[in-house]
Amino acid sequence: MSSTRIEHDLIGEREIPEAVYWGIHTLRAVENFPITGTPISHHPALIRAMALTKSAAAQANQRLGLLPDEIAEAIVTACEQIAEGALHEQFVVDVVQGGAGTSTNMNANEVIANRALELVGRPRGDYGVIHPIEHVNLGQSTNDVYPTAVRIAVRTVLGELRIALAHLAAAFAAKAVDFADHLKMGRTQLQDAVPMTLGQEFGTYAVMIGEDMQRLDEAARLIDEINLGGTAIGTGLNSHPDYAAQACSVLRDLTGFPLTTATDLLEAGQDVGAFVQISGTLKRTAVKLSKVCNDLRLLASGPRAGLGEIRLPAVQAGSSIMPGKVNPVIPEVVSQVAYEVIGNDIAITMSAEAGQLQLNAFEPLIAHKLLESAAHMSSAATTLAQRCVPGITADVERMRAHVERSAGLITALNPHIGYEAATELAARALSSDRTVAELAEDAGLLSRTELAAILSPVALTGHARPRSSENTAKSI
Amino acid sequence: MSSTRIEHDLIGEREIPEAVYWGIHTLRAVENFPITGTPISHHPALIRAMALTKSAAAQANQRLGLLPDEIAEAIVTACEQIAEGALHEQFVVDVVQGGAGTSTNMNANEVIANRALELVGRPRGDYGVIHPIEHVNLGQSTNDVYPTAVRIAVRTVLGELRIALAHLAAAFAAKAVDFADHLKMGRTQLQDAVPMTLGQEFGTYAVMIGEDMQRLDEAARLIDEINLGGTAIGTGLNSHPDYAAQACSVLRDLTGFPLTTATDLLEAGQDVGAFVQISGTLKRTAVKLSKVCNDLRLLASGPRAGLGEIRLPAVQAGSSIMPGKVNPVIPEVVSQVAYEVIGNDIAITMSAEAGQLQLNAFEPLIAHKLLESAAHMSSAATTLAQRCVPGITADVERMRAHVERSAGLITALNPHIGYEAATELAARALSSDRTVAELAEDAGLLSRTELAAILSPVALTGHARPRSSENTAKSI
Amino acid sequence: MSSTRIEHDLIGEREIPEAVYWGIHTLRAVENFPITGTPISHHPALIRAMALTKSAAAQANQRLGLLPDEIAEAIVTACEQIAEGALHEQFVVDVVQGGAGTSTNMNANEVIANRALELVGRPRGDYGVIHPIEHVNLGQSTNDVYPTAVRIAVRTVLGELRIALAHLAAAFAAKAVDFADHLKMGRTQLQDAVPMTLGQEFGTYAVMIGEDMQRLDEAARLIDEINLGGTAIGTGLNSHPDYAAQACSVLRDLTGFPLTTATDLLEAGQDVGAFVQISGTLKRTAVKLSKVCNDLRLLASGPRAGLGEIRLPAVQAGSSIMPGKVNPVIPEVVSQVAYEVIGNDIAITMSAEAGQLQLNAFEPLIAHKLLESAAHMSSAATTLAQRCVPGITADVERMRAHVERSAGLITALNPHIGYEAATELAARALSSDRTVAELAEDAGLLSRTELAAILSPVALTGHARPRSSENTAKSI
Amino acid sequence: MSSTRIEHDLIGEREIPEAVYWGIHTLRAVENFPITGTPISHHPALIRAMALTKSAAAQANQRLGLLPDEIAEAIVTACEQIAEGALHEQFVVDVVQGGAGTSTNMNANEVIANRALELVGRPRGDYGVIHPIEHVNLGQSTNDVYPTAVRIAVRTVLGELRIALAHLAAAFAAKAVDFADHLKMGRTQLQDAVPMTLGQEFGTYAVMIGEDMQRLDEAARLIDEINLGGTAIGTGLNSHPDYAAQACSVLRDLTGFPLTTATDLLEAGQDVGAFVQISGTLKRTAVKLSKVCNDLRLLASGPRAGLGEIRLPAVQAGSSIMPGKVNPVIPEVVSQVAYEVIGNDIAITMSAEAGQLQLNAFEPLIAHKLLESAAHMSSAATTLAQRCVPGITADVERMRAHVERSAGLITALNPHIGYEAATELAARALSSDRTVAELAEDAGLLSRTELAAILSPVALTGHARPRSSENTAKSI
Repeated sequence: MSSTRIEHDLIGEREIPEAVYWGIHTLRAVENFPITGTPISHHPALIRAMALTKSAAAQANQRLGLLPDEIAEAIVTACEQIAEGALHEQFVVDVVQGGAGTSTNMNANEVIANRALELVGRPRGDYGVIHPIEHVNLGQSTNDVYPTAVRIAVRTVLGELRIALAHLAAAFAAKAVDFADHLKMGRTQLQDAVPMTLGQEFGTYAVMIGEDMQRLDEAARLIDEINLGGTAIGTGLNSHPDYAAQACSVLRDLTGFPLTTATDLLEAGQDVGAFVQISGTLKRTAVKLSKVCNDLRLLASGPRAGLGEIRLPAVQAGSSIMPGKVNPVIPEVVSQVAYEVIGNDIAITMSAEAGQLQLNAFEPLIAHKLLESAAHMSSAATTLAQRCVPGITADVERMRAHVERSAGLITALNPHIGYEAATELAARALSSDRTVAELAEDAGLLSRTELAAILSPVALTGHARPRSSENTAKSI
Repeated sequence: MSSTRIEHDLIGEREIPEAVYWGIHTLRAVENFPITGTPISHHPALIRAMALTKSAAAQANQRLGLLPDEIAEAIVTACEQIAEGALHEQFVVDVVQGGAGTSTNMNANEVIANRALELVGRPRGDYGVIHPIEHVNLGQSTNDVYPTAVRIAVRTVLGELRIALAHLAAAFAAKAVDFADHLKMGRTQLQDAVPMTLGQEFGTYAVMIGEDMQRLDEAARLIDEINLGGTAIGTGLNSHPDYAAQACSVLRDLTGFPLTTATDLLEAGQDVGAFVQISGTLKRTAVKLSKVCNDLRLLASGPRAGLGEIRLPAVQAGSSIMPGKVNPVIPEVVSQVAYEVIGNDIAITMSAEAGQLQLNAFEPLIAHKLLESAAHMSSAATTLAQRCVPGITADVERMRAHVERSAGLITALNPHIGYEAATELAARALSSDRTVAELAEDAGLLSRTELAAILSPVALTGHARPRSSENTAKSI
Repeated sequence: MSSTRIEHDLIGEREIPEAVYWGIHTLRAVENFPITGTPISHHPALIRAMALTKSAAAQANQRLGLLPDEIAEAIVTACEQIAEGALHEQFVVDVVQGGAGTSTNMNANEVIANRALELVGRPRGDYGVIHPIEHVNLGQSTNDVYPTAVRIAVRTVLGELRIALAHLAAAFAAKAVDFADHLKMGRTQLQDAVPMTLGQEFGTYAVMIGEDMQRLDEAARLIDEINLGGTAIGTGLNSHPDYAAQACSVLRDLTGFPLTTATDLLEAGQDVGAFVQISGTLKRTAVKLSKVCNDLRLLASGPRAGLGEIRLPAVQAGSSIMPGKVNPVIPEVVSQVAYEVIGNDIAITMSAEAGQLQLNAFEPLIAHKLLESAAHMSSAATTLAQRCVPGITADVERMRAHVERSAGLITALNPHIGYEAATELAARALSSDRTVAELAEDAGLLSRTELAAILSPVALTGHARPRSSENTAKSI
Repeated sequence: MSSTRIEHDLIGEREIPEAVYWGIHTLRAVENFPITGTPISHHPALIRAMALTKSAAAQANQRLGLLPDEIAEAIVTACEQIAEGALHEQFVVDVVQGGAGTSTNMNANEVIANRALELVGRPRGDYGVIHPIEHVNLGQSTNDVYPTAVRIAVRTVLGELRIALAHLAAAFAAKAVDFADHLKMGRTQLQDAVPMTLGQEFGTYAVMIGEDMQRLDEAARLIDEINLGGTAIGTGLNSHPDYAAQACSVLRDLTGFPLTTATDLLEAGQDVGAFVQISGTLKRTAVKLSKVCNDLRLLASGPRAGLGEIRLPAVQAGSSIMPGKVNPVIPEVVSQVAYEVIGNDIAITMSAEAGQLQLNAFEPLIAHKLLESAAHMSSAATTLAQRCVPGITADVERMRAHVERSAGLITALNPHIGYEAATELAARALSSDRTVAELAEDAGLLSRTELAAILSPVALTGHARPRSSENTAKSI
């Protein structure tokens, strides 16, 4: 028979299993929100951030003489342990929850209180000694603690995403060097355009991703501003005048992030614009990743009846019925993550728009979707960087044949023979099986020597060599 | 010097240009909503529907003895004229407006009243005789008139879209017949799969669009239920007990649509779910059209360095720098319309979700976006049906070569030699330049005769011949 | 030391833990798609549907003499066990995966083969006897099996959602009866409009949800059409001519759903329009649920400084800083689920639009998001029906006071004194502290007796009594 | 009889009305894209930007000796005139068009050429003298000219939006001063929370909008990087090596924007990430504006049966049936614009994701929606700033009564009597009609003097006074 303890709240009493660190508030929340089956511990960065925020609050209160040393120290130790990974399984409320984060905060208060009690040799539930609300939550409100913790958690996962993107950009940059001399047709609107190199094509992807890293950095800076100390609605009611500054200072040290207290705490408490901005930036990155993966799938189409310019490494059998078929499964999964991130952005946007008066009640969904978007995109970028890009090979002969047979070379003759004559020549090339060079020479428009000079690879592609932009280089 | 008349409302008096049919309520709305610069006359179906609804209300009131014959007849005649296209330039309030459609309703009330006054030989503004609100709006509220008119307008544009889609489906079906014998490689995940015919491919598009026509029909039926007679919030306050039935009956005759009065008028007055459903269905159609157009662009890619299986008709020069380049501009514009429709669906969805209590204040945006989505999609489908699909030609030789060189044929040998042996053979075909038939024969796995039978076009593609599904046939 | 077995695929050999039922294809997929950490077993309806589909295929092949009885029976038994809940933990590939469902299909093939081997007394991996592809996947392709299974799974979760919505509609309908006589102000655009009863308000919600159940039923019918037997691209290559009909018939019996084989299998194989339609309908339901919950939160706002017309049951303490505060946490969580569903719709829409040629490679995301949307919405509706609606109480006095003090009553006087006189009276009522009845009587416009008749509750609200529409009643 | 001239392109010859400045390419485009009926002249900023870009190109070519002085000067003068507003009615191609902007570019080439011909005394169509492509488009491709012009146009409308937002922020800031001393209840989750001032509430809105102005500034900087000189795909084929730098320098002078040439022109030519970022930022602003407007509508709800804390100025009659009703029409229209902007963001996102290889073919839709979003939001912010915010008045008495009667004051007693005792007191206050102060005093928990000090307005709200954050102040 498993033993229980009794806890109470404003509704009444409930039995809590003796073994668990959470209490009655958590129990109610678990019962009220049986939505996804996914507990908040699914986001370890959020649990860690809650613990660090609670630790900062306790330290600030201790310094201000509001919390006895023994209690403060027990709380701080409990928080440290959680931040290092302990007790995450005790964070059991659903990621999708009503109450503006109150249940997450209560879950944290209860687990920290019970762990702190344990550290001072008291039984779980002995809240007369260390109380989840009166001590662990001292001078705090869900409405300042939770947004602060979400900011720290988001910043953490953005850091992880940044690393994944840096690996991916490097993988593409390496391929750009490998493929620097492979001449191929560039395409606009899926129609043969003018020549370029495969190296230029892959270099583009490296630059693109590099730029996104900068945008993510800028977006991350928006959440360095926290509202800890604003308490319920930003007026700071019930917190010590020096508390906000002290707690922010401690939290800065604990996290290593350059956190500052918002100038207007009322605004900071209700405004989730920074999350919308970050989600918008993640969406931008998602769009880029999907575009790049769409390109990879197009360039690798075939192997016979497609473009067939590159081949992606085989990472699994492609079909249960077509032997030997190999599919672009990694780019496909990346695009799906991109679509998920774009969908999450809408969920975040609607949650943000639905905020009312002094609080946004829907921040739990914002947090969940934002953390999910960043985490899934990190995984997608990493799998693309590790299992796909490095193994890509080029079909140099096929690309060269494409260039030689293409009427698109006519563009280079344009300045020499005029747009109208060139248009006519292009039409003849397409309806016959002859190259534009042959036709131009035959028509006496240009000599073979002139044509060789005009149509040399360097002349055709030389303006813009693949390289990392300076901006990108600096930021990696 | 242009003369003016004075009108007044609850705020005060204003001068109105003598020449215009609209009055002070319209003037206020024009000043309050200088948002898009697009007046509601941009949607003629909406103006026509407002006029028919007002006519039905006047006729019902006349029958019930609530409106004197002379006034009723003048109003009905004015409405008829507007429904036939007159005075649309007098509908000047912005398509994006606050007030749940009140300004559109007021604009209609004023134009109808002033036209009716003219018909009985009175000057504009002589509201003592025929009053925009007391007579034209008798027994009505914006909240029942406007949703009713929007429903009728949407039904009208859905009818136009249906015709456009029928043309498009027919254009694809005709091509399916033309291309019935052209063998080609089918592709899954952009990788060579197994053979099919180009006719099958185009037949698929005809079926797809035919199914969407059925879905649009079903969705249209949802808006046959109107809330006319519910007045302000659905309780029917200030309307005669028989008014709702009478007005609905007249409106049924005027529109030819099988309209019915909603069972629960309170629900009908606040619920915009039918519009969300229709928008979702339009989105589905948009997704299909874009998918088909993406396919057309892919199949027509090249002409040399792409798939090059089909060629789209040249409808304009493709480039200001690349002579002779022809781009798939019609499919491109269709996809853009699709993206617009998908975006509009979000605007409609958010407007719907923001409805509060007894009314959705955001129905003007819902109406505008829904009418826009349907109209743009009609135009896009029509331009695709007229200027692109009929002129598509096939490169039969290229498609045949793709089939012969493809390792995808190995699938057909699968039942004869087993998945594992087939996998090995496919790998050999891809690394060499030989066909799977040659390799299978050389390896003694199958005889030339057996291979000829297994790899015959009929054997490869025969199960499913292109045809309109019966469902589709019935619905066109 | 844990023992392993060796398996191979087109890439090479790998060690597989002896204890697991999955094989090398699953292993590769797990390595390739470390995206969400959520395995496909998260959707039990999908695993069950895969098992039933595989069983139907085996039974059809057995009847057609293509699969030896002993093998067929072992496969069928294995599938039955999985359908009943066994071995779900062996379905380990990520819910977000590339490859158009191939990895899910392979995972199923391998688990079923190994379980079947076990049933016939052979060791796992002894594929010479029962082979995951040559036997379990006989006559099948991922491209017909997976979409078929997804359809069955979606239909299953839609059925669960329907039950949840029926409970919710019934809960609102019960409240409509309880509150039938409570007079209150109706509101349009958040401004006092005209009177109604609280019963009418709650009855509206019941009707609304009832209509959505009908829309979901219609949408569910769209996925009764399956493409089993189309194999790779819909041409039915490698399947027996009678296979499609046989397999469909068996599957109909196994599932109890009225499944039919699509008329055009090529179209059915590539078109995911039915999923877009269903997602659009789920979105509609989400919009409604969120609108209703927004209303509940508004009506319950206060308790002192808000509308305060109803009170929601307290289900947990609302604040860690504000003692006694009770928040509308259940409606809040429902709206968040709605935002998630709307976001998922975008992910599904983009996945659908990205389909190319003969297949949509992104169906795994479509399936995941659709199953998630339906499941979360079921949970949300259930928690609303169980933990919130039944406990709602009304503040009858406050509502009555609102009605009496409101200038909105003036509307009822409109037909008696005219719009212009009524406008003036309303202005006087708002600027003074007097009721419109008093002012009308003082002004000699109407007698006290007349006013009593005009302003009686029945006169004000009588037209439309709350009731389930017949449609709704029939469908529950 | 109207005369015509003959022009030809790669498809053949067409008659062009003599009076028009556009030519055959424009004619084809008008016929191909009958989509929205809205011509590109709907976006004057875009026409102006096209003219400036063409002027810069001509000046650069002239300096490099590639364009004869007389021709260059005629082109430059024509461009100047268009930039100043002339001939906009000649820009007739549809805002939604295929071809990646080619039709817009061709329309500009033709109008400029024909205006330049006129300036040198030649008839329209005399392209042997000044040619739309060989001269006006010299060294250019649609693919560098069009994206450059779109960037300049977007930057222009963002500048206009910034001004509109500054006015709006100032309007709220002024109200924050007016309302600085009005005590009221703050609300979280629509439930009474703790006191604040109405000035704090309005100050928050000023800060919020001020922050958005900063985000828009940052986003605008992203489009200072242009790809002019990249020509077809970014390799700069057919442009002079010094052209890009020269043209950028001239364009910088013409526009006054700090434009720079992108480091990697291939990347810059295909990447539309900057537009996605800007749209995401516009979406953020839209979310904020809508949230603020939702708050205004809530606070103004009533006038009797709602919160009724503020009153919005009456700008039009609210109802055609309810006399004297005044609705929050301006906030309503702002929210609708916000929903439109959020929908546009999806259209832009999908267009961006659909870009392939060296070009995004869907940039016309991106441009149209981005320009529309910024323009509509400017109008909405302006109408809110001019016609709504300044006229808002406060109901000081009602707000004070709300504070006094609220159980939310209990929070302030929390530090003095403990969370558990406070919870009990709050419950008693809510079930009785007594204030928490009275109950606390009666229970002997605190003296009247203590209560007066704890519950003084300054003590309750004093921490955070409303003010513009320094950031905001600097940026206005």
